[in-house]
Amino acid sequence: MRRRMMIVAVWLLLVLIGGSPLGAAEPAKSEALSSWNDGAGKKSIVDFVTRVTREGGPDYVKPEERIATFDHDGTLWAEQPMYFQIAFAMDRVRALAPKHPQWKTKQPFKAVLDRDIKALAALGETGFLKIMAATHTGITTDDFAKIVADWLATARHPRFDRPYTELVYQPMLELLSFLRANGFKTFIVSGGGVEFMRVFTERVYGISPEQVVGSSGVVRFQLRPDGKPVLLKDSKIEFVDDGPGKPVGINRFIGRRPIFAFGNSDGDQQMLQWTAAGSGARFMGLVHHTDAEREWAYDRKSSVGRLDKALDEANAKGWTVANMKTDWKRVFAFESQ
Amino acid sequence: MRRRMMIVAVWLLLVLIGGSPLGAAEPAKSEALSSWNDGAGKKSIVDFVTRVTREGGPDYVKPEERIATFDHDGTLWAEQPMYFQIAFAMDRVRALAPKHPQWKTKQPFKAVLDRDIKALAALGETGFLKIMAATHTGITTDDFAKIVADWLATARHPRFDRPYTELVYQPMLELLSFLRANGFKTFIVSGGGVEFMRVFTERVYGISPEQVVGSSGVVRFQLRPDGKPVLLKDSKIEFVDDGPGKPVGINRFIGRRPIFAFGNSDGDQQMLQWTAAGSGARFMGLVHHTDAEREWAYDRKSSVGRLDKALDEANAKGWTVANMKTDWKRVFAFESQ
Repeated sequence: MRRRMMIVAVWLLLVLIGGSPLGAAEPAKSEALSSWNDGAGKKSIVDFVTRVTREGGPDYVKPEERIATFDHDGTLWAEQPMYFQIAFAMDRVRALAPKHPQWKTKQPFKAVLDRDIKALAALGETGFLKIMAATHTGITTDDFAKIVADWLATARHPRFDRPYTELVYQPMLELLSFLRANGFKTFIVSGGGVEFMRVFTERVYGISPEQVVGSSGVVRFQLRPDGKPVLLKDSKIEFVDDGPGKPVGINRFIGRRPIFAFGNSDGDQQMLQWTAAGSGARFMGLVHHTDAEREWAYDRKSSVGRLDKALDEANAKGWTVANMKTDWKRVFAFESQ
Repeated sequence: MRRRMMIVAVWLLLVLIGGSPLGAAEPAKSEALSSWNDGAGKKSIVDFVTRVTREGGPDYVKPEERIATFDHDGTLWAEQPMYFQIAFAMDRVRALAPKHPQWKTKQPFKAVLDRDIKALAALGETGFLKIMAATHTGITTDDFAKIVADWLATARHPRFDRPYTELVYQPMLELLSFLRANGFKTFIVSGGGVEFMRVFTERVYGISPEQVVGSSGVVRFQLRPDGKPVLLKDSKIEFVDDGPGKPVGINRFIGRRPIFAFGNSDGDQQMLQWTAAGSGARFMGLVHHTDAEREWAYDRKSSVGRLDKALDEANAKGWTVANMKTDWKRVFAFESQ
């Protein structure tokens, strides 16, 4: 009896939603994107999702192939005045400094402890890599995740005086939900460290760890003398998920070409090219930071998140460029509080 | 009206299944494992799944943390008389031979063309790597996937005279489905090539490409003169997902420790150790090849899929060892046809 009622309920549900929940026959609901102003940006998103989810339509894409990839820094959350992971690394140098008295006089640590951004910039990539090695390696993956979680719970963004995880873009959160409600799988494909991001992406974006692709260092398995296995983070760089590394990372981790990709900088250009080169309907989007009042305004000349060549290609090829100032009703959730 | 009926249908459904579909309050249905004989192997699986899915119970695990990892060769499909990917590589050498007349006299290709398994074995890993480089690299990822698909459609297993993809274990297919029906995410974690496996894992196992972790070579992004981006498979080895590489691959690709892992050889030992070392309820399993009649019988002395140290550890720690001869009612789906 119970079984028959169940069958009736499932049947009723399927009839009412007109097929499968993923391939819903109803048009995509644009009300979900309430922080987007009506305009070309929002329209291009809704049109695309409507086309690829319309069963029997010429652009229909099966749910398992609805792969959407998002850059992280500057696309899902802010990246000024510096990438948040760099802020983490610098805080970490300060936290570890008492155990390393020599850092007071040794670069690049001295520059961090003196908060001498100019000296730090002058040390370039070599300095950066030394800071990353000192703060991200030589510990187990479990310990690292705990350190990141503790930092996120206490650190505050210098301009907004809020936890970094509140600096996520409300319109992009809505876009992620909108895509998932339409049967897409959403992935992060970022130059940031994969083990840094995975600590919070599920809670903040609803993106589970295995749907996060990022840069990584070598990790080694070790069976400790007490029989406990650990994974140790080594200082050797394994993979840089930026620029041409993004399609490579997509291939390696996802194994399927996205039909939808969103970025904000030249580091996303190859991911967008790779997405565009597939067959069938495609969506390529860029966040253009044009709002110095609510967020920041920067593009072609910025050292962080430079958007120059990718902007030219987007304009030439008609990719979607979301103008933060005009396309977004609000940038951060806390604006409306 | 339509909306109200929908609400009624959903409500009815939720009442009937007693909560959420993922955290079903009913005990796990063991009838799903119809190719498993009633015995210790089946019981340990059903007991574990019942415990971790019982909401409010002491061993309850949230659906997002229900990660199950499976080795591939010898665990989900057969691996005798040689790993099927090696059979592919050797067929590929034969197919490419007309374009490489020098192979007739040059090792290791000569041994393949002469079907001289003894000479091939004597060439060891160096010979193997040369064959892999000649058959798996220097082409685009798209071309490689097509070659694998064509091979799977035409090649036949020497003993069973059937496509290799029919050599999958029916009890393990049922186990994958059973776990997914209970809210698990199922992953393959194999020493096999990730781009080889992804061609068929979704069709054969219902495991999508991004849930396949495997060994890989370096892949490079290239923008061709006509503006078309491609990914080229390089001959440099990037990652070997075997032995201690398995927990590393799990960390890199999945980013979460499994609560359930199944293997069949010493190459799976570290994956099982890593799984066992997490907190809360854990399941570690091994397929023991004990059935020379229906499949093969091999363990401690085998060059393919050696099971020695991992078997000792399983016995010492009470991990589940599925005895193919006694635990499996049937091995392959075609047996009952």
